[in-house]
Amino acid sequence: MSSRPTESEMSIGQPRSATQCILPDSKVKALAREWLAEDCASFDFGGMVVGNKTAKAQLLCKSPGVLAGVPFFDAVFRELGCIVTWHYHEGDSFVNDKHNKFQRVKIATVCGPIKNILLGERPALNVLSRSSGVATQCKKYIARAKEKGWKGRIAGTRKTTPGFRLVEKYSLVVGGADTHRYDLASMVMLKDNHIWSTGSIENSVKKVLSLASFTTKVEVECQNIDEGLEAAAAGAHVVMFDNQMPEELKRSAKRLKEIYPQVIIECSGGVDEQNIEEYFGDDIDVISTSKLVQAYPCVDFSLKILKDSISD
Amino acid sequence: MSSRPTESEMSIGQPRSATQCILPDSKVKALAREWLAEDCASFDFGGMVVGNKTAKAQLLCKSPGVLAGVPFFDAVFRELGCIVTWHYHEGDSFVNDKHNKFQRVKIATVCGPIKNILLGERPALNVLSRSSGVATQCKKYIARAKEKGWKGRIAGTRKTTPGFRLVEKYSLVVGGADTHRYDLASMVMLKDNHIWSTGSIENSVKKVLSLASFTTKVEVECQNIDEGLEAAAAGAHVVMFDNQMPEELKRSAKRLKEIYPQVIIECSGGVDEQNIEEYFGDDIDVISTSKLVQAYPCVDFSLKILKDSISD
Amino acid sequence: MSSRPTESEMSIGQPRSATQCILPDSKVKALAREWLAEDCASFDFGGMVVGNKTAKAQLLCKSPGVLAGVPFFDAVFRELGCIVTWHYHEGDSFVNDKHNKFQRVKIATVCGPIKNILLGERPALNVLSRSSGVATQCKKYIARAKEKGWKGRIAGTRKTTPGFRLVEKYSLVVGGADTHRYDLASMVMLKDNHIWSTGSIENSVKKVLSLASFTTKVEVECQNIDEGLEAAAAGAHVVMFDNQMPEELKRSAKRLKEIYPQVIIECSGGVDEQNIEEYFGDDIDVISTSKLVQAYPCVDFSLKILKDSISD
Amino acid sequence: MSSRPTESEMSIGQPRSATQCILPDSKVKALAREWLAEDCASFDFGGMVVGNKTAKAQLLCKSPGVLAGVPFFDAVFRELGCIVTWHYHEGDSFVNDKHNKFQRVKIATVCGPIKNILLGERPALNVLSRSSGVATQCKKYIARAKEKGWKGRIAGTRKTTPGFRLVEKYSLVVGGADTHRYDLASMVMLKDNHIWSTGSIENSVKKVLSLASFTTKVEVECQNIDEGLEAAAAGAHVVMFDNQMPEELKRSAKRLKEIYPQVIIECSGGVDEQNIEEYFGDDIDVISTSKLVQAYPCVDFSLKILKDSISD
Amino acid sequence: MSSRPTESEMSIGQPRSATQCILPDSKVKALAREWLAEDCASFDFGGMVVGNKTAKAQLLCKSPGVLAGVPFFDAVFRELGCIVTWHYHEGDSFVNDKHNKFQRVKIATVCGPIKNILLGERPALNVLSRSSGVATQCKKYIARAKEKGWKGRIAGTRKTTPGFRLVEKYSLVVGGADTHRYDLASMVMLKDNHIWSTGSIENSVKKVLSLASFTTKVEVECQNIDEGLEAAAAGAHVVMFDNQMPEELKRSAKRLKEIYPQVIIECSGGVDEQNIEEYFGDDIDVISTSKLVQAYPCVDFSLKILKDSISD
Amino acid sequence: MSSRPTESEMSIGQPRSATQCILPDSKVKALAREWLAEDCASFDFGGMVVGNKTAKAQLLCKSPGVLAGVPFFDAVFRELGCIVTWHYHEGDSFVNDKHNKFQRVKIATVCGPIKNILLGERPALNVLSRSSGVATQCKKYIARAKEKGWKGRIAGTRKTTPGFRLVEKYSLVVGGADTHRYDLASMVMLKDNHIWSTGSIENSVKKVLSLASFTTKVEVECQNIDEGLEAAAAGAHVVMFDNQMPEELKRSAKRLKEIYPQVIIECSGGVDEQNIEEYFGDDIDVISTSKLVQAYPCVDFSLKILKDSISD
Repeated sequence: MSSRPTESEMSIGQPRSATQCILPDSKVKALAREWLAEDCASFDFGGMVVGNKTAKAQLLCKSPGVLAGVPFFDAVFRELGCIVTWHYHEGDSFVNDKHNKFQRVKIATVCGPIKNILLGERPALNVLSRSSGVATQCKKYIARAKEKGWKGRIAGTRKTTPGFRLVEKYSLVVGGADTHRYDLASMVMLKDNHIWSTGSIENSVKKVLSLASFTTKVEVECQNIDEGLEAAAAGAHVVMFDNQMPEELKRSAKRLKEIYPQVIIECSGGVDEQNIEEYFGDDIDVISTSKLVQAYPCVDFSLKILKDSISD
Repeated sequence: MSSRPTESEMSIGQPRSATQCILPDSKVKALAREWLAEDCASFDFGGMVVGNKTAKAQLLCKSPGVLAGVPFFDAVFRELGCIVTWHYHEGDSFVNDKHNKFQRVKIATVCGPIKNILLGERPALNVLSRSSGVATQCKKYIARAKEKGWKGRIAGTRKTTPGFRLVEKYSLVVGGADTHRYDLASMVMLKDNHIWSTGSIENSVKKVLSLASFTTKVEVECQNIDEGLEAAAAGAHVVMFDNQMPEELKRSAKRLKEIYPQVIIECSGGVDEQNIEEYFGDDIDVISTSKLVQAYPCVDFSLKILKDSISD
Repeated sequence: MSSRPTESEMSIGQPRSATQCILPDSKVKALAREWLAEDCASFDFGGMVVGNKTAKAQLLCKSPGVLAGVPFFDAVFRELGCIVTWHYHEGDSFVNDKHNKFQRVKIATVCGPIKNILLGERPALNVLSRSSGVATQCKKYIARAKEKGWKGRIAGTRKTTPGFRLVEKYSLVVGGADTHRYDLASMVMLKDNHIWSTGSIENSVKKVLSLASFTTKVEVECQNIDEGLEAAAAGAHVVMFDNQMPEELKRSAKRLKEIYPQVIIECSGGVDEQNIEEYFGDDIDVISTSKLVQAYPCVDFSLKILKDSISD
Repeated sequence: MSSRPTESEMSIGQPRSATQCILPDSKVKALAREWLAEDCASFDFGGMVVGNKTAKAQLLCKSPGVLAGVPFFDAVFRELGCIVTWHYHEGDSFVNDKHNKFQRVKIATVCGPIKNILLGERPALNVLSRSSGVATQCKKYIARAKEKGWKGRIAGTRKTTPGFRLVEKYSLVVGGADTHRYDLASMVMLKDNHIWSTGSIENSVKKVLSLASFTTKVEVECQNIDEGLEAAAAGAHVVMFDNQMPEELKRSAKRLKEIYPQVIIECSGGVDEQNIEEYFGDDIDVISTSKLVQAYPCVDFSLKILKDSISD
Repeated sequence: MSSRPTESEMSIGQPRSATQCILPDSKVKALAREWLAEDCASFDFGGMVVGNKTAKAQLLCKSPGVLAGVPFFDAVFRELGCIVTWHYHEGDSFVNDKHNKFQRVKIATVCGPIKNILLGERPALNVLSRSSGVATQCKKYIARAKEKGWKGRIAGTRKTTPGFRLVEKYSLVVGGADTHRYDLASMVMLKDNHIWSTGSIENSVKKVLSLASFTTKVEVECQNIDEGLEAAAAGAHVVMFDNQMPEELKRSAKRLKEIYPQVIIECSGGVDEQNIEEYFGDDIDVISTSKLVQAYPCVDFSLKILKDSISD
Repeated sequence: MSSRPTESEMSIGQPRSATQCILPDSKVKALAREWLAEDCASFDFGGMVVGNKTAKAQLLCKSPGVLAGVPFFDAVFRELGCIVTWHYHEGDSFVNDKHNKFQRVKIATVCGPIKNILLGERPALNVLSRSSGVATQCKKYIARAKEKGWKGRIAGTRKTTPGFRLVEKYSLVVGGADTHRYDLASMVMLKDNHIWSTGSIENSVKKVLSLASFTTKVEVECQNIDEGLEAAAAGAHVVMFDNQMPEELKRSAKRLKEIYPQVIIECSGGVDEQNIEEYFGDDIDVISTSKLVQAYPCVDFSLKILKDSISD
């Protein structure tokens, strides 16, 4: 059984149907080429066994989750001259039936030369299962927030798989989470090293505000309310409380918001699916966690060539 | 508390101290460059805050696991003109103390311009935590085999993260597992699609043996003992029983080995840390699972600049 | 005659001595390689005439300007195994003497194989003369602001030379100007097309605030004060008045600041060195212009091999 | 008001309508990809606001000049799956009307997904405005020659923007100027360093003639007529008088041509739009200047999406 | 006169009609791009002379040989927007007529813009003539085996042209030869250096069997029968006798096969077209030689544009 | 026995000792990386057997020839952190002894980690044996000219191995031959297709002279003396007689030189080592042949690790 998200389900996150519009096509194409090269360094003798007659293959979803990664799957097969027809959309959810079993869902059909379907199979499934895994993980975290009525954002950190960040950060968007900063060239974040290099939070914030473009936000990692107040006073746009206990965190956030209502308050450190609700507070705007981009489960997909679909 | 593996601990897997000799340096260097580019698309204004005085930073391990990924960590910092001095070796294990708590371990020291230490920090930690995660996962699976006295190999599949296969497959070697085939150009594997394309297992094996080089092994995915016998008779080097129940599997393997003792028998499908011991059988040579390269936990590392290490 | 900027001279812009810390080394290295490849597609028979004995060459500045592009010049010669010793720093100014003539200044010394000095000469000078040209242009614009006591920022747009943006945007920083957004993935800017796609400024701002990360600012291009008010009310961080006449602009800015003091006000359109002072207003935070990155003059540098510096 | 060049207008330069046949398609395609990647390093959230419905956009020319860069503009949009229909041709001129005002001209129509039109807009306009700027600059210089009846060639030097040489040199051809040598692997040019390395002009010319292929021309930079005579006697194909005063230059050229009529005579150094006519002499074949590829003005183009062109 | 191979002619080698299914398309495409870039670094003024009207060109074979390289020829022209229609297939043979003269054969027709046909001509012919040269060479060697009734395989070594291995190894397959191992990451081969590093053949084989994946074969280079026996006993899959005299070789092979019938026996060293028959022995499975990939003759092809095929 | 070329031996060709100065280092480095990547797509388990202790290896020459390719061999090992010490120079010759046997020569010593010596061995030898093969072939052809006292140049065509042109053309220079044009962007060559496109030789020469830069030579492929005269009259710099019989060729050349003494006369078509002397004529300046870059023999080199050179 599969379902598209209702409006109410999506209230905490972002609408997902048009997410792939944020991806620059030529970057996606370049990644698809690298992935294909990685999976066949020289000759594919198996391809010679099956030949290059045209066939169709069905993409099946075999475990519950949120579908994500459609543009990457498409790009792999486009590179190989195959055409993908989708029966579901980016962001659609697949859940267990009423007996709590999962019934396989036909997600898409791939049409092209058999040898090319098999060349693309593994890279395409590898990206789809991971992208959907991230989105599925996000959905669970966000569901916790919705249950508790918390209105803030849950964000994934930069602790992504090297070389795979575009996919993982994109999947956060499909899953309704916030991408946080993409890289060092996005929002400037000042941590302990930056602070003692300049002598104080105030100095480091003022220095970066004078150096960096007005188009860039500045965030400061703070250990306590005093540091938070110093950062906000100096002009930081975001104050991040690192590793504070939930109750102290909420007190710090409340105090800071009273004085600097426009400052965004983020908390981070040790948040997981179990304890996240302790961090839901009215004055907390963002909870960030690496759990969304590390060790996420993979959704199970497979590709089956339809035996009677073959034509010369 | 940390420990190097004793000889006995390693009996099932491979010795790991020299594993990095299998990596082609120029490929590792190329990856390091891509990862750095991914984490800073344009300007790092934070780098201007800290400046480029020389400093030292300590690499700390903060959770139990097997250290893996040293050559990748090195390559990231070498690209940035930083020098890494290691206090432990690839493959060393870090475990909880007798109170079942983990005491942070100083693993290595990084020396270089502060801004470059910070530029390399995230990509280097991202690869180290994942590589170590894979190796740690392998160690757990292999520990199960050692407990039960099983002598076969546990192998990771091609279900790796696109673009990150070199790291993940390498980490299998550090962790004592088998890499299985690297890509389509390694051992030829014949699956259902290849088989019905040629009409029978016999035809497909003979076809590929006549086409592919004598240097290449051929594996056939079989659903039952009859298929396994057909594959072995046709000359397959490896027979893989897919998704068989453990007891049936062991019967099939026994039968096949009696007739074709030189054939390698692999089983796959639904194996995880809990049920793996059901697959340990005298006639099973290889158990393969995607669990070693998907959703593996990350080992927790961090990099701290030593405040008093800075010099002009 | 040359001079380093005094503190007071720099008050409007940014300190420049450490600017090169914002550049990711590996990106600079990659550019240097491309530039060298562009200037010698196959054989350099001239190189065979001069041979590869070691020599020294002097880098001379031959026209007034601000020195910028040092890290790029360095990277070109490092790629060729040559060493550059600088006698001046990034951001230093060279001006006419009291007779209003320019006396050549020895800026740096390049040491390496003669053929490699000549291989690097043209690419290295081409980047240095342009980078310094941008910085020099910035300095002039900023001087106008300082004369009039205006405290805002002058920013360069995305109208940069394709493939050369890293150099041109970086040179803005050396010259004391603001880089504005680096690319489409930096701050989101909503223009007419975005606005009518969603029906209104309010809709488009709210949509992008819900989609994009909290780490990203949002700017709206507005035609008049009503649009500016709508944008600010919807949560835009920056309001950009496009092509407004200076007097109307100042009235709009004043009105907007009264109601939304935290909103940054930018103006753009038709600003040049002559008319810029008409745009200096207390409520204007940023004046942006493509003049800083288009048709900027090149500073004149040359490289002379010292005949008696050659050794085997 | 726009016009195509008449035959007579073109007499001094080259016909331009087929110029794009000199460009290797795959190089142009590669550049287009790099430019697109430069302008969107990760996510384009603005693209998600506008969506990917199909629309049309008009390319407008907003200032006088010569249209150049069509194949690069095309390549950017082809990479994005957009189609460009041109209403004018490479090399067409747009001039002020009789009231000396410029009336906007509709140059081309771009059709494709809105988000992709916006992704391509900035890189495509950035290259078109610069390419047209170079061609426009050339046209002005050539007009001076035509007025005075000079029949030689005006050539642009290698002082091009690093990474952008293909565009700038190509634009010289569109503008009717000579590209001069493309890089070090084209014609060998012997300068002071080459000459003293071998002891004399004669030695260096003979050396390079014996080394380099017979397919390559050799040019010598000379300071006076004696050097010019030595170079020509040794077999140089081109003699370049560097920084000579116009009258002395003409005397030198006359003398050289009398003795070596087949030698091409080039002059260079300090030539600009004002003083160029002083260099027009019957014995001067080529005047080269970096002014055609440095600090050239940009022609003003813009791209407007037609609101009622959108379809699902 | 041309002919397709009969079944009987092919008995020793592999069927060739479907060989191109072993090539990964995206790798072939990438090579085609590099080759085109190599043959036109900047401008093709000749292309401007011929223009871009559409024309047809005939590909002629002008000397006897085996056609190979079709997918590479195709890829070059596809990159240029040209279409190739083939009148013969990969692997077809062209031989002298009964008067022992070669009559030119029309092999294929290329259709596209004239300038692009000429841009692709040289790279496409250069690859086709070499690929066909390798396949032709293979056919000769294999013909010797067929004459003598030898059933083993003739294999080409890794002594290929750097950067051109994919083509040369692929051409071996078309020509009916064995590719031997593709690179160091294929079958592990242990030579003298590996052996004395570990102290003995036995040690080195056991070491590599424990380290490398079960999917990989292991070959040992042996100097005599004792080494061969040691290698086979240790578990080597392939024993290669290096530089043994034919008679001794046959004795060694016989002895080894009696004890280890499953071991593949290869011989190598000094084999050429003349002496190869001395190595044909019942116990020899593989004869490897670098002669198939070094100094092979080129088959002569040319491309002629059909003058009356041109249309606007 | 080996020898360096005497001055007299070199009279027809170019001096070779400094040839490597024509190579752009960064291009050579890039090629070395590609070649290494080609020879090890993923893991080198053999490298783990030998380990990374430091050792020395001797490069031996095992067959007569001219040493060429030193800078490429160097680049491969530099990429791997190994140092090469040469005992001979680029261009040195190795010949048989007085008993007409070849005694192995120790050419160079490579020092570095054993695993890296073995990683570099095959790519480095593959390039050295081919580069030396081309130079050796050149030397033979040139020896024929010297014997007969012919003073012209022997040139290699563009029929090079795709991707390997830099090496093959460079080796021509080492071998004393002429590189002819490097690619389409070098000298423009007008062939039949160009000529009928414009209606006549005269038209096509004039067209290209007006289009292409003055820095570029123009060559015309002519079928007879009349075409040669037309080409020379129109301004062609080089006239190439294609496939003319030697006697007719000499008559044509004589006639053309009488009228156009400055025109370079080239002949091509069917020239080989046997018949080349028929083409030696006083009025022939250049004989070009693809025999220098196709099917050239490889010089035999090998690399032996010195067992007692190993240190930790």
